[in-house]
Amino acid sequence: MSKRAERPGRGDYRRFFPVQTRWTDNDMYGHANNALYYEWFDLAVNTLMMEEGGLDPMHGPVMDFVVESGCRYHEGVGFPDALEVGVRVGHLGNSSVRWECAIFRKGEQQASADGFFVHVFVGRSDQRPTAIPERLREAMRRLAPRSI
Amino acid sequence: MSKRAERPGRGDYRRFFPVQTRWTDNDMYGHANNALYYEWFDLAVNTLMMEEGGLDPMHGPVMDFVVESGCRYHEGVGFPDALEVGVRVGHLGNSSVRWECAIFRKGEQQASADGFFVHVFVGRSDQRPTAIPERLREAMRRLAPRSI
Amino acid sequence: MSKRAERPGRGDYRRFFPVQTRWTDNDMYGHANNALYYEWFDLAVNTLMMEEGGLDPMHGPVMDFVVESGCRYHEGVGFPDALEVGVRVGHLGNSSVRWECAIFRKGEQQASADGFFVHVFVGRSDQRPTAIPERLREAMRRLAPRSI
Amino acid sequence: MSKRAERPGRGDYRRFFPVQTRWTDNDMYGHANNALYYEWFDLAVNTLMMEEGGLDPMHGPVMDFVVESGCRYHEGVGFPDALEVGVRVGHLGNSSVRWECAIFRKGEQQASADGFFVHVFVGRSDQRPTAIPERLREAMRRLAPRSI
Repeated sequence: MSKRAERPGRGDYRRFFPVQTRWTDNDMYGHANNALYYEWFDLAVNTLMMEEGGLDPMHGPVMDFVVESGCRYHEGVGFPDALEVGVRVGHLGNSSVRWECAIFRKGEQQASADGFFVHVFVGRSDQRPTAIPERLREAMRRLAPRSI
Repeated sequence: MSKRAERPGRGDYRRFFPVQTRWTDNDMYGHANNALYYEWFDLAVNTLMMEEGGLDPMHGPVMDFVVESGCRYHEGVGFPDALEVGVRVGHLGNSSVRWECAIFRKGEQQASADGFFVHVFVGRSDQRPTAIPERLREAMRRLAPRSI
Repeated sequence: MSKRAERPGRGDYRRFFPVQTRWTDNDMYGHANNALYYEWFDLAVNTLMMEEGGLDPMHGPVMDFVVESGCRYHEGVGFPDALEVGVRVGHLGNSSVRWECAIFRKGEQQASADGFFVHVFVGRSDQRPTAIPERLREAMRRLAPRSI
Repeated sequence: MSKRAERPGRGDYRRFFPVQTRWTDNDMYGHANNALYYEWFDLAVNTLMMEEGGLDPMHGPVMDFVVESGCRYHEGVGFPDALEVGVRVGHLGNSSVRWECAIFRKGEQQASADGFFVHVFVGRSDQRPTAIPERLREAMRRLAPRSI
């Protein structure tokens, strides 16, 4: 294990999105199941894209599909923790984007977990990869650590 | 993308565990959210460990924590698909095990998604890493592609 | 409390639908949360309507909305129990139907929980109540204890 | 239907608890599944009992089991709505309590859904009904509309 040195800190992320945990998030071990962390990443990223990039998941011209994801878990979190998802864009392509996310307990500097996922954008009607709309792309650029 | 060549087939896994999808598995896009795949992996692996390795999650001397996970998604699945989780052990250490899993639609030869996760076993009372109990280790060995 | 006498048995339902429980169904108390029972009811009823009544939730002309639900819990169930949802139609109106459901542990005669929910059917385009399509209505009639 | 007259308003509840919706709360119809409302009720009530009544779900001497629940749905809600759960105590017995809850969209006066559930308290070790601890009972009294 010995991964403490690799735990990212708050300075590694561009935006922080609050997540409310739920009673039902915890499994029999009293912590959130590993799958939940991906739901929280999704919640943060999709909300940012809707609020800042104009994504309309139900009716807009594009949909975002996840093609890869991963996460490292450093310490257990769960209800009733107040959490924040740190978000940055790691790579921005023509039709795809790599989101890098981390879970922070409110007030803590080191991430409890860190991961990523890759979105590919497709047209709603043909389900084929398509260029990310410009307004959305601009919102993504603002979440990248440097010009990408 | 162009990842079709990397999609694993049924021959790459040692055991297949059926998973029933649910109405609530599907999100607004009509497919299962990416986080669900990890729940299905968990369900398959924990059930196998309980049934074949004597794991007792609520009362036994050891608990299994996930320290890392990842998944690649090749095509969308969801309710009402009948699914199977292919399972194999990729690495077996003293206190940890790497599970490699894939999602197959019933009757299909190529995986719709493939991923992995790493379990570390800890003592229930001290929450410190501990050797995997022998009966459980034997069950894991039977799920490894070759002697590991 | 003293509700044992009211627990329905298998003879009170017309059809039994298997439900696979999941690791993540259990909460910190080691049993399924009360909300899950409603997901299982939904799963059973929607699958029956799709398989036997031609309901097409994503593309068909009608959608089903729940306007009321209720459940009594007689004993805790959860992962890894094998469950069955008993289903019957309690009332069939022009645009609405009352489903009466119960949860049985496999092999048990008395219900672990029993409840109901009411579906109202609306047109996909106008979201106004509409008559239940005839093929679906016939499937519902077959699930009623007597001619209704 | 014609239930508009029965929709409760904010004045019918004693406390309001914020709930953050999630991408994964929405089903294929683009709204939260009916089962989710019960999860939100649970979240509000359990948090209030923990914060104001000293309930310790994992280690305390008592556990709360739900023996009955019900809900009426007046209009669909879901991600990305900001919600509030209105809470009041409807009945307070020796070992049981009836919670009456409603879902409000932020800023709206009429409930989108209203329901209830009944908790029975049991001892952690013997799982038998037991008197509600005094500190918890006081918190419940403060959530009752009148002295009960």
